[in-house]
Amino acid sequence: MAGSHEKSNLRVSAEKVLRFPGEVGVMMWEMGKEDPRRVIHSIKVGLALSLASMLCLLESLSQGIGQNAIWAVMTVVVVLEFTAGATLRKGLNRGVGTLSAGLFALFVEYLTADRPTPRAVVMAWTVFVIGAAVTYMRFLPTIKNNYDYGVMIFILTFSLILVSNYRIDDTTRMARDRFYTIVIGCGICLFLSLLIFPTWSGDDLHKSTIAKLEGLAQSVEACVGEYFGDAQTKEIQDELLKDSIDENCIKVLDSKYTDETMALNASWEPRYRWKCYKSPWQQYVKFGAALRRFGYTVMALHGCLHTEIKTPPSVRALFKDQCTRLAGEVSEVLVELANSMRNRRHFSPEILSSHLHIALQDLNTALQSKPQILLDSMNRKDSGFSLTASLEANSSPVHESATARPPEQVHGIQKVLRPQRSKLVIASLEFSETLPFAAFASLLVEAVARLDHVIEEAEQLGRMARFKEYRAGDDVA
Amino acid sequence: MAGSHEKSNLRVSAEKVLRFPGEVGVMMWEMGKEDPRRVIHSIKVGLALSLASMLCLLESLSQGIGQNAIWAVMTVVVVLEFTAGATLRKGLNRGVGTLSAGLFALFVEYLTADRPTPRAVVMAWTVFVIGAAVTYMRFLPTIKNNYDYGVMIFILTFSLILVSNYRIDDTTRMARDRFYTIVIGCGICLFLSLLIFPTWSGDDLHKSTIAKLEGLAQSVEACVGEYFGDAQTKEIQDELLKDSIDENCIKVLDSKYTDETMALNASWEPRYRWKCYKSPWQQYVKFGAALRRFGYTVMALHGCLHTEIKTPPSVRALFKDQCTRLAGEVSEVLVELANSMRNRRHFSPEILSSHLHIALQDLNTALQSKPQILLDSMNRKDSGFSLTASLEANSSPVHESATARPPEQVHGIQKVLRPQRSKLVIASLEFSETLPFAAFASLLVEAVARLDHVIEEAEQLGRMARFKEYRAGDDVA
Repeated sequence: MAGSHEKSNLRVSAEKVLRFPGEVGVMMWEMGKEDPRRVIHSIKVGLALSLASMLCLLESLSQGIGQNAIWAVMTVVVVLEFTAGATLRKGLNRGVGTLSAGLFALFVEYLTADRPTPRAVVMAWTVFVIGAAVTYMRFLPTIKNNYDYGVMIFILTFSLILVSNYRIDDTTRMARDRFYTIVIGCGICLFLSLLIFPTWSGDDLHKSTIAKLEGLAQSVEACVGEYFGDAQTKEIQDELLKDSIDENCIKVLDSKYTDETMALNASWEPRYRWKCYKSPWQQYVKFGAALRRFGYTVMALHGCLHTEIKTPPSVRALFKDQCTRLAGEVSEVLVELANSMRNRRHFSPEILSSHLHIALQDLNTALQSKPQILLDSMNRKDSGFSLTASLEANSSPVHESATARPPEQVHGIQKVLRPQRSKLVIASLEFSETLPFAAFASLLVEAVARLDHVIEEAEQLGRMARFKEYRAGDDVA
Repeated sequence: MAGSHEKSNLRVSAEKVLRFPGEVGVMMWEMGKEDPRRVIHSIKVGLALSLASMLCLLESLSQGIGQNAIWAVMTVVVVLEFTAGATLRKGLNRGVGTLSAGLFALFVEYLTADRPTPRAVVMAWTVFVIGAAVTYMRFLPTIKNNYDYGVMIFILTFSLILVSNYRIDDTTRMARDRFYTIVIGCGICLFLSLLIFPTWSGDDLHKSTIAKLEGLAQSVEACVGEYFGDAQTKEIQDELLKDSIDENCIKVLDSKYTDETMALNASWEPRYRWKCYKSPWQQYVKFGAALRRFGYTVMALHGCLHTEIKTPPSVRALFKDQCTRLAGEVSEVLVELANSMRNRRHFSPEILSSHLHIALQDLNTALQSKPQILLDSMNRKDSGFSLTASLEANSSPVHESATARPPEQVHGIQKVLRPQRSKLVIASLEFSETLPFAAFASLLVEAVARLDHVIEEAEQLGRMARFKEYRAGDDVA
């Protein structure tokens, strides 16, 4: 038995190993299908490497640049990045870093040429002082964000030149050769990156902003739809839906770092410069921040779906139409903003029209016309459970409503016991059941208020990026 | 006149230039005072550079490693990072990348040795295929997150060896030399980074988690304090307070990327491995995610401070004590969690005791005992303004309450005109004024529910990181 068990184990492992290349292959294929620019980028890197290598061969044949030709290969590997902006940023940093380090090294050489101290000591000391000082400077936020790579290359080149100089006497030639090869390497990279199927960081930022707007629009609508939907009948479907609402929102909320990187790279790209006075990338970042602000409210709205105290469906149904309509209007504004961005035009003035405000007023009227119902459910005490019992007996399992939780969750609670306590207490409290609904409505109104800020930033963005004027029917064409 | 103007302009510029070094100096000083480890790191880099340079000199004197010795300098510059984890990660990646590239290059050499095709063509083709294929692999998430640098070094070394091989015939020696020097460079880096005043990524992550807990505790308390405080009298102070609440919260919400980087670097650090079964760093990331979830609710709570419809102070005052107490309890739990982390012990079981739940019940009782007041303010219609007028005349400026906005804001609105419309409409609507209070109370209850999840993850973290058991009075000692 043990033997056959071992054998089957072995077979499972063998199957896993055999399946592995296939799985990786599928993953690679999916990756390429998801974003074909990845394939293009890989081919470009291969091409650049080949070109740089051939150059080395030619140069070594003619005994021109010599040993330093390998720097062209190195430059290609390090500088050629996925987007044009990142490549430009790295290439320029590398070029300027090398050039200034070379000049500085020559200057130090000149200063220390006729000193009586041994050259090795001077060199070690200089490398130490410059290395430490420049490394410290790298912590400055301005340098860290924009020129970190250039400063690193500065330290590298400076040390290499000083060290090599001790062995080779012709420092000037070495510095010159190295600079030439790096310029050639950067040239290959920039040519491939800017002229052959370029990938612009700015475009990525633009597209991700559109995707965020659409994601939020979906989120808002789905959230309200689910709140007023019949929760009992389609539990599983809801679980999926909840996750997708969550995901859209979290994508927006976590986008800060990627946004900033893309904007930074985009700011090195020359493309839009002649189109507008000022590069609008920082405005994209600001717009992203406004969207995140809006997203926090949507996230809180979404929290209302998971809340422990449920407003009875009968109360919710009273305000269903008004809330759904308001959410629909909010979502429409977001979609229109996304469309206007996609077509690089100003948004339609319709989004500032009174639809949204009429929807607001309707909700207001509905809330005012039925205060008695809200009050009724607030006063209803028979539906709750006794909390005092559960608080007195601290270790006894908390009373709970059978309808409020599915059985598998009860089992989970008894196993972990102490955590989730507050949730149980909240569920068993006689909190007025309209409280969460009031929160929901209030958050919806809050979302409308936050939308103002989003629209404002979008208008500013349209002005800075010089989007074209809105004309009805443009999108169709 | 123009001349003197020009002169004064010149003087201002000159003063600016003269002040600049001083300003940079102050900034540098502040930077060092903020985190003295930066100074230590800079000195370490200088030292490592000197050591590597001296090594090159010694080697070149004895004609040992030769030209390849500069790789030691290069390795030091590139590998030595601020934290030990990052250095280890880069160093190991570099070592393994170089080694495997060397072996692979030798293998390719062996395969192509006796082919009739010209060597240059074979070389260019090999470099192209391998470069493209490996670059494409870099897009795989697993490789991108952990081994990106190693793969880059693989491409680099592979190309360099093939190219150099065309010129120098002794490939084996070059690969061996290069590997030796890189090992020496990595050795210097690891020695300085792990043994001399090490900076642990894991410690940073631990400390930042504590700071986040404390920030959130402050945020919750300050937020509730401000909501029930007298808003009119201390406008300016509030503005500052609001910003600090905001800042604490946003720091938590934006921490995803830095958390993940720190956890990644920490997972390479050997330090805690012998203390616990499994590295707890991913649990820190999960704990951070739970804190962010909690933070969204706090952010929404904070949004209640800025809302356009204000609940009258008289209504708020009725529930002040209960809300403040509940917020105090929440904040106390967070502070206890922070303290337990700081002392690397499990949290006191007191945070699971009934204080929080009694506070919840008190709020509940208060809300139930005064429904009439809530209803009264809901029905009060004379305090509102007519919305219909503003909606009918779409282009006319919206009516607004003089008390609701300071005059300079009105001016701003008239200038921009269209944006901020929704805010005005919301302010002028006759929304029941208790709506935002209900939202506030509901969000507070929601925050308590979210706290459960935070406590759960903290318990899990304590178990995984093998914190010591809680004993009363431990913190004092």
